[in-house]
This record gives sequence, C-alpha cells and structure tokens, in this order.
Amino acid sequence: MNQEPEFHFSAPVKVRLPETDAMGIVFHGNYFTYLEVGRVEYLWNLGLAEGNRPIREFENVVVSAQLDYRSPARLHDILTIDVCTRKIGRCSFTYDFRIRHKQENRLVAVGSTTHCAVDEKLQPIPVPEGFRDVIGRFERWEKK
Amino acid sequence: MNQEPEFHFSAPVKVRLPETDAMGIVFHGNYFTYLEVGRVEYLWNLGLAEGNRPIREFENVVVSAQLDYRSPARLHDILTIDVCTRKIGRCSFTYDFRIRHKQENRLVAVGSTTHCAVDEKLQPIPVPEGFRDVIGRFERWEKK
Amino acid sequence: MNQEPEFHFSAPVKVRLPETDAMGIVFHGNYFTYLEVGRVEYLWNLGLAEGNRPIREFENVVVSAQLDYRSPARLHDILTIDVCTRKIGRCSFTYDFRIRHKQENRLVAVGSTTHCAVDEKLQPIPVPEGFRDVIGRFERWEKK
Amino acid sequence: MNQEPEFHFSAPVKVRLPETDAMGIVFHGNYFTYLEVGRVEYLWNLGLAEGNRPIREFENVVVSAQLDYRSPARLHDILTIDVCTRKIGRCSFTYDFRIRHKQENRLVAVGSTTHCAVDEKLQPIPVPEGFRDVIGRFERWEKK
Repeated sequence: MNQEPEFHFSAPVKVRLPETDAMGIVFHGNYFTYLEVGRVEYLWNLGLAEGNRPIREFENVVVSAQLDYRSPARLHDILTIDVCTRKIGRCSFTYDFRIRHKQENRLVAVGSTTHCAVDEKLQPIPVPEGFRDVIGRFERWEKK
Repeated sequence: MNQEPEFHFSAPVKVRLPETDAMGIVFHGNYFTYLEVGRVEYLWNLGLAEGNRPIREFENVVVSAQLDYRSPARLHDILTIDVCTRKIGRCSFTYDFRIRHKQENRLVAVGSTTHCAVDEKLQPIPVPEGFRDVIGRFERWEKK
Repeated sequence: MNQEPEFHFSAPVKVRLPETDAMGIVFHGNYFTYLEVGRVEYLWNLGLAEGNRPIREFENVVVSAQLDYRSPARLHDILTIDVCTRKIGRCSFTYDFRIRHKQENRLVAVGSTTHCAVDEKLQPIPVPEGFRDVIGRFERWEKK
Repeated sequence: MNQEPEFHFSAPVKVRLPETDAMGIVFHGNYFTYLEVGRVEYLWNLGLAEGNRPIREFENVVVSAQLDYRSPARLHDILTIDVCTRKIGRCSFTYDFRIRHKQENRLVAVGSTTHCAVDEKLQPIPVPEGFRDVIGRFERWEKK
C-alpha cells in the first residue's frame, strides 16, 4: 500500500463470544468474516447487491487476503469496519479495510482482499463496466 | 414447554454471508451462535457478566440445546433474539428463546438451552443465590 | 426417543482450536457442525450425495435440532459421530446421532435432527421413494 | 518471500459443508482455520504444546496473516496443510503454509502468519530460547 487509503464507508460489527479464544480476544481468522460483513454492506449500499448475492452482475472469487493486527478486540466490543475500493484492474479488484474499536477509536487491524471476476466455471472474465462506473463514482476517482 | 414463555428482553443479530448455505438460508447450527449472542446480552443487561465472562460469579456448561425452525432467515435479515429464563433448579437453569424476523415480525425459530453450574473441574455446584435473585427479580417471578 | 437407536455408520471429527471456548472445551453450537459432517458422510456412503449436495435428488431444510451434552470434548480429541436414520415420514425424516470420545469410548453427546424435503420455494414435498428405499435397506428396516 | 519455503511437516483437513459458500467453494476466511489446524499439529508434533495451549511455554498473538488463493476447494476435499517456521526474530516468529489438494496434488493456497510472543498483558516478550532451539533443530537450521 503506497498511499494511505481514504475511507467513505463503514459498517459496524459486534464481537460475539464464540469468536473469542482462550485469551478472551478475537481469533484472527474471524476478522475475515468481519471484512466480509463490511464488503457486503458496502456493495449493498452502492446498489450492486441482490438478495444473497453481494454482486448481482457477476461472480467473484477471492485471490488474496491479508490483515495486519494492531490491537486486540474482545467480547462486546463494537468494531467499525472501514471499506474502500483501492483499484479495479482488468479482471480483478482490491478492497482496503481498516478495523477500528468504536468506543476507543483505536486501530485494531488494517488489510485488503483482492477478488477476481469469474464465470460459472470460475474462469477470469473482465470486470463489467457498470460495476467499475458505480464504484469509481462513489470513490470519486478522477476520470482520466 | 407446558406454557408459552414470556419475554422481557431481546437482542438484535444481523445475518452474515458466511452463515448462509448454498440455498441462501442460514445454516441451522449458526442459530446457536445467535442464541449465545442473546444470552450474553441478557446476562450483561442484568449486570451478571464481567469482561469476557457471561456470568461473573461461576462457570457453567450447556447440558442440552434444542431449536425448532419455523421459517428461513437470509443475508441482511435482522433477527430479534428474545430471551428469558424459564427456571432455575438446584444446579441447572434453562433459558427459552424465540427468534423473530424483525422486518416481517415472522417467527424464525423457538428453542431452549439448559446449563449446569460447575466448578473448575466441571463438577456440578449449586446455583449461587445472588444469580437466582437477580434473575427472579428481572423475570418477576412470584416469591413463594 | 422411546428406543435406543442402533448405529451402523460413523465418521470421525477432530476438534480444532477455534472450536473451543475460554474453558478449553468445545462450544456447544459447534457440535451441530460435527453432526453435519456425520450426516453428509452417511449420505455420501449411501451414494445419495452428489458434489456439493448432500442429497442429490431433492433439497431439504432442518426443522428441528436437539443435543444433550454428557461430557466435554477438548482440543485434539477425535470424536466418533455415529449416525442413523430413525424414521422417514411423508415429507420429513429424522436422524439420530451419538458423539463418542474415540480414545476413551466416552459418551460426549446424543441428539437428533429432523429435516423436511422441500421444493425450490422451500415448500414441503413428499420424500422421494428412491431415498426411502436406499435408507431403509441400509438401516435394515423390516418391510411391513 | 524471497525463497521457496521447504516443508517437513503436514496435517490433513477435510472440508465440511458449512465451510463452503453459495458457489460450493470454501469461504476464503475459513482457510485461516485450516492454517490453525496445521500450526497446532506442527507444535504438538514438536512437543511444544500442552493440553489446550498450542505453545506451553508462553502466549502469542497473531500480528499478521496473509493468503494467496490459487484454486478452489470443495466439500469432501481432503487438503494437506504444509507448515514450516520461516524465521524466529527477537519477539516474533513467522510460519509459512502451503495448502494442497490431496487427491490431485493441486496447489490451493500459499501464505504465512506472523506471531508475537506476549506476556499476560499482551505486551511483547523475547521468544524463549527453548522454543527457538526445538524449532531450529526440527527445521534443520544451520548454527551460525
């Protein structure tokens, strides 16, 4: 990440007991579920989702996921999941995330997921223009 | 359940994508996590919890759990988890639950969990009086 | 359950760290995932599954699930999930389960799940004869 | 990762139905649970674990986790989780992982997790020498 991402969307998540471990802190793998919540809400907010499908227009698979953990989260903590789209390539696109502890405005984690648009056989397809436009408009990307 | 339980407490849960299955409905096992959310909030509201421990005063293990599913829940649905304590025995106590679809006020599931108060070696111990009193007062159980 | 179920099939499950709680024992809700593993293996063994679908011929939803917990399971424990079909009604069918601690042959839990055969709109449909026959033969139900 | 990691340990994982999504493939976040299974087995195999604690001698928290997904995994697939320790720093240590589809010897994912040794207050502490020695011996690191 060369540049600090700018976030214009966030969704809340409340930590549930079975998500914590023996030390009373959230198991690191569960944060990827929190990112999923943030991403789904983000797409929903942009009118790109439909029913059970986060993106109505096409399927996608995650090709890479990465998180740096800065401080722990515990039972009852409300976390703010900040989401933005960092870039859209030909067949793939990348979201940036920031997880903050709501009450303390403390950074809990930062990371990203990269997705590939695919057809029914899970083969890469170009990212549809409609998707690209809606995201670009929301993120206020400059037209080149 | 001989008698319809009366609910004086509820907590919200929002369905997350990884909790749904190939049919787009919540996997039945995940509802027990929703019950856990309701139960923890219930105990927290009564001042019985502390930090990561739903019940500050003693440990407990679930000895029985049961749910009847009446209608499906899907991504984005907000569910209302109604919780009450049905009874407290010598070493065990039982919660009743009702899960409702918030927007449609549709019954999604009803069920219960029974817990046993235990010591560090997981051996049964009598339910402490303090716990019994706080719950009895909240549930407005008649003194006998 | 009026009568002790007879089990002719079992599948192993090994407890994973994120499935345990602060006391080091498996969170009770996770056992329903273990039952799912046993059930899917059972159907697979009978040739009733296909790809990602536990039952090839029709969809089904869980209408009731119930477990009694007899003793705890911990990290690394290998559990034996015993599965049998208790009965098949017109539109619904019930599996019985027994979870045993493999090394100690100790009873961990007993329970059942009841399922309803459904069409695409989640409306009940009669259980197909083929399914009924395959199960009845495996379970050695007497022809009436 | 400048250099291809060399793996001397692996653990099997079988995909469970609730771990798959609407497309029938494993939800990407669940792979971090598979890594946890591999890591716990690895530490157990080295005699570093005890009971519910993957590392007997000290606590640790994950400070970074990362996975690249190369091909999908589905219900019933048996995955081989290859694990090695890449390096041990003063307070932190990094594991490399490779997930392979057992039957097809197909690469499913590669990644790593970095952990920090901590005290009870989650403050960094130096990695104990004993841990360092056992791992170094197993991984056949050259003495400098």
